[in-house]
Amino acid sequence: MAFRDECGVFGIWPMPEASRQAYLGLYALQHRGQEAAGICSRDNGRLHLHKAQGYVADVFSEATLDRLPGDAAIGHTRYSTTGGNVASAAHPFVVEGRFGQIALCHNGNLTNTEILRHRLIEAGQVFSSPSDSEVILALINRAQAPSLEDAVVEALRQVEGAFSVLILTEDALMAARDPHGFRPLAMGRLGEATTFSSETCAFDLLGADYVREVEPGELVVVDRQGTRSRFPLARVQARPCVFEHVYFARPDSLVYGLSVMATRRDMGRLLARRHPVAADLVVPVPDSGVSAALGYSEESGIPFDFGLIRNHYVGRTFIEPRQSIRSFGVKVKLNPVRELLRGKRVVLVDDSVVRGTTSRKIVSMVRAAGAAEVHMRISSPPTTHPCFYGIDTPDREHLLAARMDVEGIRTFIGADSVGYLTLDDLQASVKDAGGESFCYACFTGEYPVTPRSKGTCG
Amino acid sequence: MAFRDECGVFGIWPMPEASRQAYLGLYALQHRGQEAAGICSRDNGRLHLHKAQGYVADVFSEATLDRLPGDAAIGHTRYSTTGGNVASAAHPFVVEGRFGQIALCHNGNLTNTEILRHRLIEAGQVFSSPSDSEVILALINRAQAPSLEDAVVEALRQVEGAFSVLILTEDALMAARDPHGFRPLAMGRLGEATTFSSETCAFDLLGADYVREVEPGELVVVDRQGTRSRFPLARVQARPCVFEHVYFARPDSLVYGLSVMATRRDMGRLLARRHPVAADLVVPVPDSGVSAALGYSEESGIPFDFGLIRNHYVGRTFIEPRQSIRSFGVKVKLNPVRELLRGKRVVLVDDSVVRGTTSRKIVSMVRAAGAAEVHMRISSPPTTHPCFYGIDTPDREHLLAARMDVEGIRTFIGADSVGYLTLDDLQASVKDAGGESFCYACFTGEYPVTPRSKGTCG
Amino acid sequence: MAFRDECGVFGIWPMPEASRQAYLGLYALQHRGQEAAGICSRDNGRLHLHKAQGYVADVFSEATLDRLPGDAAIGHTRYSTTGGNVASAAHPFVVEGRFGQIALCHNGNLTNTEILRHRLIEAGQVFSSPSDSEVILALINRAQAPSLEDAVVEALRQVEGAFSVLILTEDALMAARDPHGFRPLAMGRLGEATTFSSETCAFDLLGADYVREVEPGELVVVDRQGTRSRFPLARVQARPCVFEHVYFARPDSLVYGLSVMATRRDMGRLLARRHPVAADLVVPVPDSGVSAALGYSEESGIPFDFGLIRNHYVGRTFIEPRQSIRSFGVKVKLNPVRELLRGKRVVLVDDSVVRGTTSRKIVSMVRAAGAAEVHMRISSPPTTHPCFYGIDTPDREHLLAARMDVEGIRTFIGADSVGYLTLDDLQASVKDAGGESFCYACFTGEYPVTPRSKGTCG
Amino acid sequence: MAFRDECGVFGIWPMPEASRQAYLGLYALQHRGQEAAGICSRDNGRLHLHKAQGYVADVFSEATLDRLPGDAAIGHTRYSTTGGNVASAAHPFVVEGRFGQIALCHNGNLTNTEILRHRLIEAGQVFSSPSDSEVILALINRAQAPSLEDAVVEALRQVEGAFSVLILTEDALMAARDPHGFRPLAMGRLGEATTFSSETCAFDLLGADYVREVEPGELVVVDRQGTRSRFPLARVQARPCVFEHVYFARPDSLVYGLSVMATRRDMGRLLARRHPVAADLVVPVPDSGVSAALGYSEESGIPFDFGLIRNHYVGRTFIEPRQSIRSFGVKVKLNPVRELLRGKRVVLVDDSVVRGTTSRKIVSMVRAAGAAEVHMRISSPPTTHPCFYGIDTPDREHLLAARMDVEGIRTFIGADSVGYLTLDDLQASVKDAGGESFCYACFTGEYPVTPRSKGTCG
Repeated sequence: MAFRDECGVFGIWPMPEASRQAYLGLYALQHRGQEAAGICSRDNGRLHLHKAQGYVADVFSEATLDRLPGDAAIGHTRYSTTGGNVASAAHPFVVEGRFGQIALCHNGNLTNTEILRHRLIEAGQVFSSPSDSEVILALINRAQAPSLEDAVVEALRQVEGAFSVLILTEDALMAARDPHGFRPLAMGRLGEATTFSSETCAFDLLGADYVREVEPGELVVVDRQGTRSRFPLARVQARPCVFEHVYFARPDSLVYGLSVMATRRDMGRLLARRHPVAADLVVPVPDSGVSAALGYSEESGIPFDFGLIRNHYVGRTFIEPRQSIRSFGVKVKLNPVRELLRGKRVVLVDDSVVRGTTSRKIVSMVRAAGAAEVHMRISSPPTTHPCFYGIDTPDREHLLAARMDVEGIRTFIGADSVGYLTLDDLQASVKDAGGESFCYACFTGEYPVTPRSKGTCG
Repeated sequence: MAFRDECGVFGIWPMPEASRQAYLGLYALQHRGQEAAGICSRDNGRLHLHKAQGYVADVFSEATLDRLPGDAAIGHTRYSTTGGNVASAAHPFVVEGRFGQIALCHNGNLTNTEILRHRLIEAGQVFSSPSDSEVILALINRAQAPSLEDAVVEALRQVEGAFSVLILTEDALMAARDPHGFRPLAMGRLGEATTFSSETCAFDLLGADYVREVEPGELVVVDRQGTRSRFPLARVQARPCVFEHVYFARPDSLVYGLSVMATRRDMGRLLARRHPVAADLVVPVPDSGVSAALGYSEESGIPFDFGLIRNHYVGRTFIEPRQSIRSFGVKVKLNPVRELLRGKRVVLVDDSVVRGTTSRKIVSMVRAAGAAEVHMRISSPPTTHPCFYGIDTPDREHLLAARMDVEGIRTFIGADSVGYLTLDDLQASVKDAGGESFCYACFTGEYPVTPRSKGTCG
Repeated sequence: MAFRDECGVFGIWPMPEASRQAYLGLYALQHRGQEAAGICSRDNGRLHLHKAQGYVADVFSEATLDRLPGDAAIGHTRYSTTGGNVASAAHPFVVEGRFGQIALCHNGNLTNTEILRHRLIEAGQVFSSPSDSEVILALINRAQAPSLEDAVVEALRQVEGAFSVLILTEDALMAARDPHGFRPLAMGRLGEATTFSSETCAFDLLGADYVREVEPGELVVVDRQGTRSRFPLARVQARPCVFEHVYFARPDSLVYGLSVMATRRDMGRLLARRHPVAADLVVPVPDSGVSAALGYSEESGIPFDFGLIRNHYVGRTFIEPRQSIRSFGVKVKLNPVRELLRGKRVVLVDDSVVRGTTSRKIVSMVRAAGAAEVHMRISSPPTTHPCFYGIDTPDREHLLAARMDVEGIRTFIGADSVGYLTLDDLQASVKDAGGESFCYACFTGEYPVTPRSKGTCG
Repeated sequence: MAFRDECGVFGIWPMPEASRQAYLGLYALQHRGQEAAGICSRDNGRLHLHKAQGYVADVFSEATLDRLPGDAAIGHTRYSTTGGNVASAAHPFVVEGRFGQIALCHNGNLTNTEILRHRLIEAGQVFSSPSDSEVILALINRAQAPSLEDAVVEALRQVEGAFSVLILTEDALMAARDPHGFRPLAMGRLGEATTFSSETCAFDLLGADYVREVEPGELVVVDRQGTRSRFPLARVQARPCVFEHVYFARPDSLVYGLSVMATRRDMGRLLARRHPVAADLVVPVPDSGVSAALGYSEESGIPFDFGLIRNHYVGRTFIEPRQSIRSFGVKVKLNPVRELLRGKRVVLVDDSVVRGTTSRKIVSMVRAAGAAEVHMRISSPPTTHPCFYGIDTPDREHLLAARMDVEGIRTFIGADSVGYLTLDDLQASVKDAGGESFCYACFTGEYPVTPRSKGTCG
């Protein structure tokens, strides 16, 4: 129960009914963004676009997919919008320019958007949305390079920050990842087709095989000649975002080649070693705390059970009684199992604490259900700094752990004890993917790329 | 992963903004029916109705709730429709007759509907839908009794089968349960208000306290004079439906006064004792198999983990590629965690097997993900007979266990072994609520009430 | 610009795709009701229903029409709802009873509904809506007669007031008109099929031929044996509603066998003779005053022109500026042509004046556009009494002409002169259909049938 | 019954609730485009946009207008889309660039779009739609001029063809009309506010006063300093489109300062003089032929009547019976009045003939209704050439009059005689606005501006 999700991207080439495959891919990536969805397909050198606000299943129908013909497609599912007009911020973005039509969608935030945008505007460029994608598209079309592929490289060399980007042109599908590789991007194979996805769970639904990660700094180009790879961007230490493993990714995905479920379980085990407690029951905050809670239970020997039940029918709207003095907030989503919790010393396991208000309500709810003690265990270190690389975090002053120490947090959320995972432990849990060099900026404030401006999460 | 859900009912009196409280109640009971929802409120002796197809959150808006004023309300959430016009089958039903306006909604199936309907039609009655509710309303209005309360009793004495019914009149709220008490109905208290709900999870969301069950054969009347109880119906052995505990109810509910989560866990423990197996991993079929799987794991000592991940964003529509030769079916909802299952001897725990086709796909999916062995464990006995008391089951010839023995089932679903809970074990798991006398007809074919015709599930 | 419309009915048998033909018929009858629409079809002895709020074009889609198979259908388009739940008041009503399924829809108001309803309720009948249709259906099912046809007759003999009714059963289509024949009902032929419609404009769209009126007191039965006629109801002087010719019907329809356009033109001619005036321009209040205005112009020799232009894109909603002190009301629909009206002595022709508020706004609008004089001419007598036979009129105290004489009306609406058609003239305009005996109750208060209670307009 | 409509623009500054006033304006201009609508408002130097497909009344709600705060607004209603994505072609377009945010909408077609677009693309510009508006916005942002106003002038000097454009910036509202003044644009006053509209009927609804036309080649700027005018564009002979008077504009509008109703009536009178015929009845093809038909009747002395009735409830969809061999086409919209036409020699008056197929159906319909003779009279000359200045016409080969002479047309549409207005007569009808120099290119092929490419109708 942490930060809000970011975005998911998916692409495939060449594949009959490519837009329907992209629909499948986005369906599996829905957890990465529920605000808007879009697919752009390529048919005989022409691009076709449909995007709108809403869930993937609502945005697309047989009819809209029929209007997206062709053998190549990219798609995007989006969470949050920075600023006003939600509709205009949906991806992919499609423009016509020097190289004909180009569609682009990305996951991640650029950190020098404002500078680039300012420079482009000075040169007469106009923008119809605040999206980083439009900046990249403008850079491509203003590049000196004569070929589209080189223009893409020239553009990507100018942008800083985090981007896992998919580009669909009249002749090719390209996938690129920023030099630090902040955001994930996996490559798969389905028959003849090459496919890209933020997470491998999309490959599972399509029946595609996971091949490998698109590497930090890599540009993969798929076209009629086949699939080729370049490393045209600066070589730097890779810094994949650890939070994908802590919270974002679906547990059945591989991210950076590691099983998310396995790393979370490890976090839970390490958490149990670091912060043991005499207790009767390990209870996850569903759904994100489940794997870590299982690990904690396994390591500690304390029984695991679902002491909080999630209502899976929670919709976008919920109407509270007008005269109610109670706030429904978390109650609509979670209900404690009184019979299970009554009289028990409970270890509550969650993945992270952001503002602390939800944690406070949950602790209070568990106590009200009769728990004798409530021990909060967090499967990541205290979140003290905002993210500038694609995760929608509150400003620093709203991060609970930036404002107080662990004892303060304990008092604030009303727990009997609070235990966080250490940075070392977290690094250990992802060590098989070179985890010691991951990006831990939200825990440490050590930003791999200086954030010069806040981009628009794509 | 079993039968389809049935219906849920909720009522409250007296309570400001009663329709908004009913909305909350139905929100919590959404798992009992996603096809349609409706609320009828009472304001100054007039009834106001809104019902439509769809989820509770979609059927009701601030505007529609504003058109349901008053201090009393009943509501219904409905799963399946027997026959054509879905809209006309939504509850509550409201009619005007001898006793003014009456609204009625129920959970359960009558078993003598056809006979009663035929008799009423002979007497000149007309029906606008196939619902059992209309039959009950007609009987009430044709009763000899001069008072409405007695007319309700007279009507309920004529109907056979399963009904947990809520009736809202111009002056009173009534709740009744058939003499066998097939379907659950709990009574709660919220300040001055008396409230009724199919499950206690609705009370939790409202902040109401659970008081007790409405007893089999009981009629509870709430009006300006307060709350009073009668037992006007035939006294027989109570036969509550055990399947509420096996599958239907939310785990955080009390049903028949028992914690659903606790009984399921017990079923899992007993299953482990009855059908032990040398294995590496206990994997639930989510979400209904989770508690039993935890019990199985606890009892057996075999580690528990989520080897199948459920996609919580599955909507009403899913568009498959046209040229696909694969069937997506269960893949859209469940994805195996390859890294977890690979090479493992897996115990799959599910609550029941109906037709067997889904189980077969899941076993196959788990094998394809690399499991070395797949042992299916079912936390209930073989389902051999259809239900006539409110659960939407296929005909007997479509019930896998009616057509073959356990070895046949094992072969059909492709498992290495299959183990069912015994009837004795199941009875033991609910013994604290007098479970030996529950209705087990779907396992035994011993029907407490002879089904004379198939009613319309309400 | 007068009373609100009432309802339209359409039926056909036998005809492939009967529901699609009914859709066409309702499309042409849309002016008779924009609130709700419904069609019931008959296929192999089973009835299928779809009805909802909204325009015909919005209520039905290819998909909903596909769910209405069969070779017979009846349909209804409805204007106003008396009382709350709009949805439950849509026609046709379909019930199952002694004679199997019966669908019924009607145009008109019964005048003894309350008495019948009370009597039926005493006998144990219940009603799910306030519609007169449900009363008729209950009477049919409680009739002594053994055959459905005789039961229909027995039922219709008990009801008083106005009804043009279509009944679809498992075996037959029936059309009946009350003994006074208050509301119109025409019979047509399309190939082998017999068809019924409130107005002949529906026949034109289908390509059907007009055959004759269903006569007052007649019952026409269409079934496999063919089409047969009976006159089972009391023989009384026919009293067709003259207002159909004054305002309701489409000008291209035949009503009671007379061309509506022709009678309206005659009304205008007679009006010019009765109330001549020295003027420069005859301007209709569109659209209902157009034909009478042409007649006035022709007879008087004063030029005709469209000095008021109607905005044909007026939708259901119109959002006024919040700080506006002007009321948009009639301005949204009508705009004066300043260049035409400036300095002119204008004869404004409208069909009737109900409350007078709209007329007042229009006169004021025409003056503001520069007219030197405004002479109001009304192509019917002063409307002094409410209708109880199917037209939605305000109570007597809201009828302008019931409260004041012509000079008072002139002052109220601000015209230089006001002239109404006389009753004699109006009778003359419809004399070819026996117009002297039509129902003129809204002008005279002489009600052919004593209104004992207000029915629900169908 | 002619070409399809084009577009309408409306703007206002300064005015409380400016977006609601723009909504009123678009409501009145709905006849100029039913495909999409949009409004951009300005509040404290920030622009707010809402646009979508559909009617004005459907696109905007209280809620969407509340999200458009501020005291200045421009709006657009759009008919046709050239090419694919309808949504992306809705106006206004809003971009952020050198001069901050700029919103732009226009009526008209540029004739050098392709050249400009190509040049801009070469310079690195990208476009997200095929709209001419984006080209103008790009030119503004790439202009050398340091001030926004001069940049607008610099941009408008580069574009050729037809444009009546409204521009809303962070500080000002601008209105400009191309040097030939092809499309109309009127200026009005409402209290302190200056307002612009394609037609004056919008002023009438708002209660604004008509001030004057925005002149060909004029740029009007409204800002905090007031309203000022410049004529920065090339001085050429003005060439307003005569077709606005023939067909497009609402009859209650002033266009180029002339009453549309009056000019149409004159066209009818001149047509009667030019092509007299012995006949019994003048019948307009509604609604566009009405005024000319009145003029024809007046001049010829032949009585006028509505022999064709238009169904005003025609929606966007109409479902035809599947097995129908008849085409419903025009029948859905128009119904002949048999009683009126039978045996008559009919003069049918329409404003123009494009492809001829509709005229053919109407003539056939009138004959089938019993007319003895059908004489077609067209209140404009033969349409022989496509429009490049903002009217959506078919290619030349689909224009009936480009393919055959009048006798051929007569045969094709099946009339007894056909008479067109002459060019001289048409010029005479608009002579009070300098009509001899209007644009008559669709009748003559003499294009005031060489069409170098087909722009996108805005």
